[in-house]
Amino acid sequence: MEVSWETSVTDSINAIYLLFSAYLVFMMQLGFAMLCAGSVRAKNAMNIMLTNVVDAVVGSLSYFLFGFAFAFGGGADSNPFIGTQYFALKDIPSSSYDYSFFLYQWAFAIAVAGITSGSIAERTQFSAYLVFSFFLTGFVYPIVAHWVWSSNGWLNPASTSLLFGSGSIDFAGSGVVHLVGGIAGLWGALIEGPRVGRFDAFGKPVQMRGHNMTLVVLGTFLLWFGWFGFNPGSFNKILVSYPDSFDQGNWTAVGRTAVTTTLSGSTAGIVTLFGRRLLVGHWDALDVCNGVLGGFVAITSGCSVVEPWAAIVCGFFAACVLIGLNIIAIKLQYDDPLEAAQLHGGCGAWGLIFTGLFAKEEFVIQTYNSGNIGITRPYGLLLGGGWGLIGAQIVEVVTIMVWVSVTMGPLFYLLHKLRILRISSDEEIAGLDISSHGGYAYNAYSEESGPQRYGDYLRLQDQS
Amino acid sequence: MEVSWETSVTDSINAIYLLFSAYLVFMMQLGFAMLCAGSVRAKNAMNIMLTNVVDAVVGSLSYFLFGFAFAFGGGADSNPFIGTQYFALKDIPSSSYDYSFFLYQWAFAIAVAGITSGSIAERTQFSAYLVFSFFLTGFVYPIVAHWVWSSNGWLNPASTSLLFGSGSIDFAGSGVVHLVGGIAGLWGALIEGPRVGRFDAFGKPVQMRGHNMTLVVLGTFLLWFGWFGFNPGSFNKILVSYPDSFDQGNWTAVGRTAVTTTLSGSTAGIVTLFGRRLLVGHWDALDVCNGVLGGFVAITSGCSVVEPWAAIVCGFFAACVLIGLNIIAIKLQYDDPLEAAQLHGGCGAWGLIFTGLFAKEEFVIQTYNSGNIGITRPYGLLLGGGWGLIGAQIVEVVTIMVWVSVTMGPLFYLLHKLRILRISSDEEIAGLDISSHGGYAYNAYSEESGPQRYGDYLRLQDQS
Amino acid sequence: MEVSWETSVTDSINAIYLLFSAYLVFMMQLGFAMLCAGSVRAKNAMNIMLTNVVDAVVGSLSYFLFGFAFAFGGGADSNPFIGTQYFALKDIPSSSYDYSFFLYQWAFAIAVAGITSGSIAERTQFSAYLVFSFFLTGFVYPIVAHWVWSSNGWLNPASTSLLFGSGSIDFAGSGVVHLVGGIAGLWGALIEGPRVGRFDAFGKPVQMRGHNMTLVVLGTFLLWFGWFGFNPGSFNKILVSYPDSFDQGNWTAVGRTAVTTTLSGSTAGIVTLFGRRLLVGHWDALDVCNGVLGGFVAITSGCSVVEPWAAIVCGFFAACVLIGLNIIAIKLQYDDPLEAAQLHGGCGAWGLIFTGLFAKEEFVIQTYNSGNIGITRPYGLLLGGGWGLIGAQIVEVVTIMVWVSVTMGPLFYLLHKLRILRISSDEEIAGLDISSHGGYAYNAYSEESGPQRYGDYLRLQDQS
Repeated sequence: MEVSWETSVTDSINAIYLLFSAYLVFMMQLGFAMLCAGSVRAKNAMNIMLTNVVDAVVGSLSYFLFGFAFAFGGGADSNPFIGTQYFALKDIPSSSYDYSFFLYQWAFAIAVAGITSGSIAERTQFSAYLVFSFFLTGFVYPIVAHWVWSSNGWLNPASTSLLFGSGSIDFAGSGVVHLVGGIAGLWGALIEGPRVGRFDAFGKPVQMRGHNMTLVVLGTFLLWFGWFGFNPGSFNKILVSYPDSFDQGNWTAVGRTAVTTTLSGSTAGIVTLFGRRLLVGHWDALDVCNGVLGGFVAITSGCSVVEPWAAIVCGFFAACVLIGLNIIAIKLQYDDPLEAAQLHGGCGAWGLIFTGLFAKEEFVIQTYNSGNIGITRPYGLLLGGGWGLIGAQIVEVVTIMVWVSVTMGPLFYLLHKLRILRISSDEEIAGLDISSHGGYAYNAYSEESGPQRYGDYLRLQDQS
Repeated sequence: MEVSWETSVTDSINAIYLLFSAYLVFMMQLGFAMLCAGSVRAKNAMNIMLTNVVDAVVGSLSYFLFGFAFAFGGGADSNPFIGTQYFALKDIPSSSYDYSFFLYQWAFAIAVAGITSGSIAERTQFSAYLVFSFFLTGFVYPIVAHWVWSSNGWLNPASTSLLFGSGSIDFAGSGVVHLVGGIAGLWGALIEGPRVGRFDAFGKPVQMRGHNMTLVVLGTFLLWFGWFGFNPGSFNKILVSYPDSFDQGNWTAVGRTAVTTTLSGSTAGIVTLFGRRLLVGHWDALDVCNGVLGGFVAITSGCSVVEPWAAIVCGFFAACVLIGLNIIAIKLQYDDPLEAAQLHGGCGAWGLIFTGLFAKEEFVIQTYNSGNIGITRPYGLLLGGGWGLIGAQIVEVVTIMVWVSVTMGPLFYLLHKLRILRISSDEEIAGLDISSHGGYAYNAYSEESGPQRYGDYLRLQDQS
Repeated sequence: MEVSWETSVTDSINAIYLLFSAYLVFMMQLGFAMLCAGSVRAKNAMNIMLTNVVDAVVGSLSYFLFGFAFAFGGGADSNPFIGTQYFALKDIPSSSYDYSFFLYQWAFAIAVAGITSGSIAERTQFSAYLVFSFFLTGFVYPIVAHWVWSSNGWLNPASTSLLFGSGSIDFAGSGVVHLVGGIAGLWGALIEGPRVGRFDAFGKPVQMRGHNMTLVVLGTFLLWFGWFGFNPGSFNKILVSYPDSFDQGNWTAVGRTAVTTTLSGSTAGIVTLFGRRLLVGHWDALDVCNGVLGGFVAITSGCSVVEPWAAIVCGFFAACVLIGLNIIAIKLQYDDPLEAAQLHGGCGAWGLIFTGLFAKEEFVIQTYNSGNIGITRPYGLLLGGGWGLIGAQIVEVVTIMVWVSVTMGPLFYLLHKLRILRISSDEEIAGLDISSHGGYAYNAYSEESGPQRYGDYLRLQDQS
């Protein structure tokens, strides 16, 4: 049976589009590594970069073996809660999924633990990191992905039986990826407690500046670059034409998604720039970078279904959410070195709500019904689309918060009780790099400038 | 009305090509940030990186709201000097432009201010930067883009009424982008004057080395990577076949453009390597990086219309221009921390002239007339194409120099007179990071190693 | 004669795919630069980065002028050992090759010398580097590429007269690129000898830590990113459908190749992580990075012809090879600052053998015979494919080792005898940056912190 030329062309175009998008998303792993490294103190730089590498390599195997199956397996005993097919890529390529789709989803999966690693940075045992990363990437995250993105998931907005006649719209994962990673980080940071010295005896916060702003900017731009794969790439196929419009199709919507993404992140960056100038009195580069990322996180849910002007609204409030949550975090003495719970959790939740308010009917139908005219379905509340969508969005927010809390919370607590979660104070003061990773990340010109083994370090401490 | 499959395929292919090219061009923003950061002293690293982030986020909004409209708006009252349509992307997608085209042009727009920021680095108030960046990206640059790249621009080489029967060929913007940014930087640096200590009491230059060559190399390679989007991407469409040739079309020309780009940059790099070895006696990595970039800037105008061998000629003289202008700059006590006026201005102007000398008829017709045989038009003077093209190229050089001078010159002068352009000497010696941005970009292992606030810094200065 | 629309579409799709793959491969040059810079001591950082830039710019010209002709020229007097056509891209575009193919191959060519530069880092004269880089990139490497990748090469697995009825399968160049670079490095490092102080008077190794782990991680992720161009891109065309299967074609195989690449690198990373934990007692980030790269090098030969599960086997043993060779290297007092001979040479050789053992018949026919059913040919020995393929693989390993040894060995020896290969001990202790490149790569906050010229450096040494 010979395959027709039309199919070959369509498959080739979509494969190029999805594969190169996957490569961009993979660069976010590097972006996270650089952002995290720059945001922690020099003595912990190697540790946090190693966690990012480990997320990728361990995530590759676990997502290959069972994570992808949990997320996208349909199969005979398919159900709305967990997939049960495609373990170790058995039956791939199938009529539904090719290898390129697996690769794209793999790049998403390894990002989740990277978010969480920021919250628990500078004080977590490496072996505990291996356990939690494996559990989050291989089990907790794929389940949520199944709910929202698998065609038979109970929250899926394109499935046959839609929640509230709508399903929840989380196009590229403000909830599935960012809220999951943020809530996991929240529990980790809460259970571990603040870093030594982060709050003084009177509860006043002591600033712990990251060691390298160049890395923060490098990481931010790489994440921006990667987000062009993350959001526009989530259409999976670019060659889908809309029956009710001349000359438009997914290729138009893909471009529009890149534009809304850019506008939301940029607006959030500007608002943070001026907002923080008013609050702290200087132009703060770190805050602008985090503001930009908060804007991206928020638009990730609705990027494909809102107008460009609405993306500006999204970014504006994302910056407010981030600034506000950071103030609250300090009041509550919550210490999250990367602001990951505030940024990915807070802005991720806002993104889901925003989509429920501003999703445009035409774009929703383009995204989830291939632009078929004649279909009516709930859309943004503020645009007159009724309560169906916003209801489903709220259900997604709440469900994710509960699911991650009941899985990751107990895991962190168990590790804590077993005394394998947090390093000792001595090791924390010395830094993870010298105590766990065989030496510092940096070596100055003089080769005799410092200890390179923890034993030497301890000996020097004893002498002084 | 159903869209035909052929249209869908064509639009999808061109959208993938243009969007991923846009993503590459966006990476040039990161490249500039790293190049600039590495080329300044450590005490100003955060400042210059923040300006690059700000160029991107402010540029997103201003280019969305009106910059794109000024550049590419046709409309009822269209005219050859400024566009008046598509404000806030109204009427996009149109039959002429899709979102992908906006995104591609946005990535170009934000690059312009990045060029200029290099010239005025290490001594400019951040609030002045915000003003000039907004004005340059939102107004000065889009006007020039309209002249050359909009179908009804008066310099456009594909429009109906061609200047000198030719129009000026500035394919990816040696003039529109680099000369504009370079001349703006020239005026900024002239009006601000040299950095404190750059020339001693006898007018002898004192070397002010950048703080990190690794960042310079990182930035250079990222810019090279981005240039593969900048130059080959400027065809906008890859699926255009040439009627007079078998098996050739824009896909051939796109590849050739990547090759000419590579050869020009590489040649300029080699010439700079050996040239500077003769001049200064060592193998200078910084100069080689700048040489490579100078070669890219120069070929940007003619990359699509010259043979590969001509690109080698282009790069050779680009290196000579750069080395020569740097010698003159020092003689004139002109201080430009990134050599931006010399590199982007000088090599940009050379690039426009080069195109007037070496453009090949066949390739000009491919690029601007879809390869239609039977058309005759001016081409490179040295290849026998007459004076029409070189004349138009010279007109573009002169017009851009005048236009940028009469807009940016007065703006910088006004900011200067209002005393909001340059920081005080004390702040300059302390560095912009501690005085304007709340602390240094880097923090060493010891957390007590230095002041982190400008107040502390001043107190320490008083004691010593 | 008008070109048909089908041809235009096919050419456009394949051009996008190949060009963007080339851009990714080019990023490996940056990856190498950062990996190398981070792995050497700070005093040699600028030197090794400059060599990476020089590989690119010199390689551009030499590969354009004759390297590509040696590798892929067919021509009237074509022969299985060296190409003789396409000098300076004459006759390009041809019916076989377009500019995009040249660009893709160029990005491969410049990578080879980058591998070798790691082996001879921190002690090689820059002028010697120029000589060897030019010779390796312009002559030694293109010859091997011709043997394996040119349709009339004697090792080519798709040619008309196949070695052992099979030809050797080196899809993306475990042998052609990595083994060549590694063996060249081996000879360079052997002839130069270890760095001053690398082994003490009793032959005990003294650790010489790289100066910046952040750069190592940055380089590793960039190389990973680039490998998505290197391996999946080596199909050259994505729009090739397989006659014996419904809905499959190169687009499927390209995705599968990205997956096997990822799995091999990840597995090797995990094995190295735990293996080194057992050996040295800490979680070593540098070793994990090198392990990941070793896994990539090994799968590069067979990435397109093995099942995903086999890629895991490939990565597992790649890590063992790397760990084992590193132990042997120390025993033999062989000093290779980047482990380049062990990693690219050892894992490259293993990769060729692995392919001979695990190549799957169906995938071999897809890759080299466009999936034509009815063809039978040798495949992996362990899958029952006989001795033809494994024999050809061993022939490739041996031939490459001999060819590189008889060309690069004498060259390094000649440079050594002429006393222009290695720098003096004094210069080595001072560092290449201050002695050959006009200053250090880094400048601290204090501008008076150190000498910036070799003369000053020597004066300071005399005083102390």
